[in-house]
Amino acid sequence: MDNVTLIAIISIATAGLTISIGSIGPALGQGKAVASALASLAQQPDAAPTITRTLFVGLAMVESTAIYCFVVAMIIIFANPFWNYIISN
Amino acid sequence: MDNVTLIAIISIATAGLTISIGSIGPALGQGKAVASALASLAQQPDAAPTITRTLFVGLAMVESTAIYCFVVAMIIIFANPFWNYIISN
Amino acid sequence: MDNVTLIAIISIATAGLTISIGSIGPALGQGKAVASALASLAQQPDAAPTITRTLFVGLAMVESTAIYCFVVAMIIIFANPFWNYIISN
Amino acid sequence: MDNVTLIAIISIATAGLTISIGSIGPALGQGKAVASALASLAQQPDAAPTITRTLFVGLAMVESTAIYCFVVAMIIIFANPFWNYIISN
Amino acid sequence: MDNVTLIAIISIATAGLTISIGSIGPALGQGKAVASALASLAQQPDAAPTITRTLFVGLAMVESTAIYCFVVAMIIIFANPFWNYIISN
Amino acid sequence: MDNVTLIAIISIATAGLTISIGSIGPALGQGKAVASALASLAQQPDAAPTITRTLFVGLAMVESTAIYCFVVAMIIIFANPFWNYIISN
Amino acid sequence: MDNVTLIAIISIATAGLTISIGSIGPALGQGKAVASALASLAQQPDAAPTITRTLFVGLAMVESTAIYCFVVAMIIIFANPFWNYIISN
Amino acid sequence: MDNVTLIAIISIATAGLTISIGSIGPALGQGKAVASALASLAQQPDAAPTITRTLFVGLAMVESTAIYCFVVAMIIIFANPFWNYIISN
Amino acid sequence: MDNVTLIAIISIATAGLTISIGSIGPALGQGKAVASALASLAQQPDAAPTITRTLFVGLAMVESTAIYCFVVAMIIIFANPFWNYIISN
Amino acid sequence: MDNVTLIAIISIATAGLTISIGSIGPALGQGKAVASALASLAQQPDAAPTITRTLFVGLAMVESTAIYCFVVAMIIIFANPFWNYIISN
Amino acid sequence: MDNVTLIAIISIATAGLTISIGSIGPALGQGKAVASALASLAQQPDAAPTITRTLFVGLAMVESTAIYCFVVAMIIIFANPFWNYIISN
Amino acid sequence: MDNVTLIAIISIATAGLTISIGSIGPALGQGKAVASALASLAQQPDAAPTITRTLFVGLAMVESTAIYCFVVAMIIIFANPFWNYIISN
Amino acid sequence: MDNVTLIAIISIATAGLTISIGSIGPALGQGKAVASALASLAQQPDAAPTITRTLFVGLAMVESTAIYCFVVAMIIIFANPFWNYIISN
Amino acid sequence: MDNVTLIAIISIATAGLTISIGSIGPALGQGKAVASALASLAQQPDAAPTITRTLFVGLAMVESTAIYCFVVAMIIIFANPFWNYIISN
Repeated sequence: MDNVTLIAIISIATAGLTISIGSIGPALGQGKAVASALASLAQQPDAAPTITRTLFVGLAMVESTAIYCFVVAMIIIFANPFWNYIISN
Repeated sequence: MDNVTLIAIISIATAGLTISIGSIGPALGQGKAVASALASLAQQPDAAPTITRTLFVGLAMVESTAIYCFVVAMIIIFANPFWNYIISN
Repeated sequence: MDNVTLIAIISIATAGLTISIGSIGPALGQGKAVASALASLAQQPDAAPTITRTLFVGLAMVESTAIYCFVVAMIIIFANPFWNYIISN
Repeated sequence: MDNVTLIAIISIATAGLTISIGSIGPALGQGKAVASALASLAQQPDAAPTITRTLFVGLAMVESTAIYCFVVAMIIIFANPFWNYIISN
Repeated sequence: MDNVTLIAIISIATAGLTISIGSIGPALGQGKAVASALASLAQQPDAAPTITRTLFVGLAMVESTAIYCFVVAMIIIFANPFWNYIISN
Repeated sequence: MDNVTLIAIISIATAGLTISIGSIGPALGQGKAVASALASLAQQPDAAPTITRTLFVGLAMVESTAIYCFVVAMIIIFANPFWNYIISN
Repeated sequence: MDNVTLIAIISIATAGLTISIGSIGPALGQGKAVASALASLAQQPDAAPTITRTLFVGLAMVESTAIYCFVVAMIIIFANPFWNYIISN
Repeated sequence: MDNVTLIAIISIATAGLTISIGSIGPALGQGKAVASALASLAQQPDAAPTITRTLFVGLAMVESTAIYCFVVAMIIIFANPFWNYIISN
Repeated sequence: MDNVTLIAIISIATAGLTISIGSIGPALGQGKAVASALASLAQQPDAAPTITRTLFVGLAMVESTAIYCFVVAMIIIFANPFWNYIISN
Repeated sequence: MDNVTLIAIISIATAGLTISIGSIGPALGQGKAVASALASLAQQPDAAPTITRTLFVGLAMVESTAIYCFVVAMIIIFANPFWNYIISN
Repeated sequence: MDNVTLIAIISIATAGLTISIGSIGPALGQGKAVASALASLAQQPDAAPTITRTLFVGLAMVESTAIYCFVVAMIIIFANPFWNYIISN
Repeated sequence: MDNVTLIAIISIATAGLTISIGSIGPALGQGKAVASALASLAQQPDAAPTITRTLFVGLAMVESTAIYCFVVAMIIIFANPFWNYIISN
Repeated sequence: MDNVTLIAIISIATAGLTISIGSIGPALGQGKAVASALASLAQQPDAAPTITRTLFVGLAMVESTAIYCFVVAMIIIFANPFWNYIISN
Repeated sequence: MDNVTLIAIISIATAGLTISIGSIGPALGQGKAVASALASLAQQPDAAPTITRTLFVGLAMVESTAIYCFVVAMIIIFANPFWNYIISN
């Protein structure tokens, strides 16, 4: 179990856990926001443009935290500075 | 337990856990959104086109986090850069 | 405990856990969606075609995350690239 | 503790855990759907045919995730490719 | 601690855990369904035949996941293929 | 710590855990059903025969999962095939 | 740490855990049932005989799962077949 | 760490855990029952005799599971058959 | 780490855990009962004597489970039969 | 790591955990009781004397379980009989 | 790792955990009480003196359990009798 | 791993955990209090001075438990008596 | 497993966990805020400018805690002072 | 694994965990406060200045606990007194 292998296995495990744990919060938050949007549309159909516009901005904000996790997972897999340092030495 | 085996077992375990943990949030969020859509349809049948259109956009947003997990799991199984590095050395 | 055995046991354990953990979210989400559909049908029987059509699309979306897990579990059991690599070397 | 024994014990433990963990979600989801169906029947007895038909389709969808788990548990006990490979070598 | 003993202890522990963990979900789901049925009967006594018939079908569906667990536990205790293989070799 | 002792201790621990974990779900489910029955009786005293009959059938269904656990615990203590095999060899 | 001691300590620990874990579910379930009975009595004092009779039958059903645990704990302490086998050999 | 010490420490730890874990359920259940009784008394003061009588019977039933735990803890401390066997040999 | 020290440390740790875990349930249960009593007093001030009398009986019942834990903790610290046996031998 | 040190560290850790875990339940219970008292005062200002008197008695009862924990923690730190025995031998 | 170091590290860790775990309950309880006070003030502004006075007494009671934890943490850091004994020997 | 290092690492880890765990309760409690204050303001705008004054006193009380944690974390990092003792010896 | 490798693996794992755990709270909080905004828009369409402005300020506040986590994760990956110290020595 | 490395890895891990765990409570608390503010604005648009002013003060209070965590994480990474002591010796 040399150093290269150790960093490889920790990178694989971390990348998977990062995106899987990081998807729980955003998915639940978006589900709640969408559910509320649909109930609002049913209650006040005339406000549909305002509601859907606010919904999409909100979904984008919530999605941003999921994207942070995805970015970190991709960095760990494809642009890992520690991995580059180890295999270049 | 050589290095190739170690990376293989950590890749298998991580791929499975990534998609299984990553499916909890999206499934619950989508279930909540669909449930709200159906209640809205029953309350305001005239707004059905707006409701279903907003629902599908919302479901797609929620599904995106599940797809992030699926993509990472597939990368770990079929396009794992660490695995490729180890078996080519 | 040689390498082939190690990969076999991790594959068996991961496949089982993937589908069992991955079935919790979709089952709860679908149950919630179905429950809401039935309450909606009782409240507005005239909207039955729209409700059931939306329900089936929603159930299919939720089922998709369960199917991701099932696909990964099947890949790990029957088309495991790491297993194929180890037993062919 | 040779290789055959190791794979046997991991197969037994995984099969049991797969079906037991995998039964929690579907059972709760089905219970929720049935409870909602009964409340709907009491509220709108005239819609009984539509409600029960939708209920059975929904229960079948929820049951499908439990069946995925049962199938994987049966594969692990009776058609385990890793077990077959080990005992044939 | 030879191989036969190992498989025996893992079989005993798995059988017990399978049925005990597997009984939580169905029992809660059935309790919820029965509770809803009784409230429905009190609200609409005239629909008693439809409600009780739907209840029994639903309870049977929920019970099915408990029975999967019971079947797997019985297979592990009385028809365990791995145990048969080990004690016959 | 010979083989007979090992199987004995795992049998004792599993039997106790099986029935104790397995009693949580049924007890909560039955409590919920009984609570709902009493509320229904107070709301619609005239439907008492139907309500109590449905209650007892439902309690029996819920009790069945507790009995599965009790049966498995008794099998593990008094009719354990693995124990019989070990002490007869 | 000989065999007799091992079985003794596992028996003591299992007996205590069995009854303590096994008392959570029944106590909560009975508390819920009693709470519902009292609310029903306040709402419909005329139905007191029916309510209390149904309550006592329900409490007995819930108590039964606690008694299963107590019986198993007593068997493990005072009529443990594994203990009898070990100390007689 | 001889056998007598081992049994003594496991007995002490088990006795404490049995009564502490076993007090959670009954205390919460009794709290719920008492809370419901008080609300019922405020709603229907005329039914006070029936309500308090039913309350006391219910509290006694819930207390019984706490008493099972207390009895087992006392047996483990003061009438432990395994301890008696060990110190008499 | 001789026997006397072992029994001393396990006694200290058990006594602390017994009373701390054992205080969670009774405190929450009593808080719930008191909260309900105050709401009832506000709703029906004329029933104050009955309500407060029932409250005190109920609090005493809930307190009893906390007292069981306190008694066991005191026995373990000040009247521990296992400790007495060890230090007298 | 001699015996005196062992007992000292277990005493420090137990004292801290006892009071910290033991403060969760009483604090939540008291918060609930106070919240209910304030809502009751707002609803029925004329019953203020009865409400505050009952509140203080109830808070004292809930506080008692926190005081049990504090007493045990103080005994473990300042009047620990096991510590006294060890350092006097 | 001599005795002085061991007691020092256990004291540091326990002090931190004691106050951090011990702050969860009181903070939540106080938040609940304050929230209820504000709702009561909005509902019945005329009872403001009684409400705020009762609130402050209640907050002080809840704060007392947090202060117990703070006192124990301070004793462990600055007046630890076990530390004093060890460094004086 | 000498003594100075050990105390340093336990101090770093404890300081971080103390403030992070200790921030959960106060943040949730303050969020609840603020939410209730805003709802009260909307319901009774005339009582704004009383409500905001009570809110700020309550927030300060809740904040106090967070500050206890912060103080302990700062003591552990910058005024740690155990660290001072070790590095001065 | 030399020092450079150790710091690399702990940095990778910590960066991933920091952003994944740190995304749960903000995502849920933002989802709740967006859901409330949409319900408010449906209830009072005339207040849309005030509601959306307050929503965006609130989302930014909640996002700030997610950004703290992202900043720390980035510092750990790309500007880690401990890593720089180790590889420069 | 010398002392410098040990302190470095514990500092990295603690900094990440501190800010990630410490962001859960404030994010949820702020989300709740913002949600309540938006509902209040919809209910009473005339009170907007008071509501938003109170909201911002409350958000700042909640944010303070997140900032405590951020400060401690920054101290541990960039101004760690233990690290400075170790690398200067």
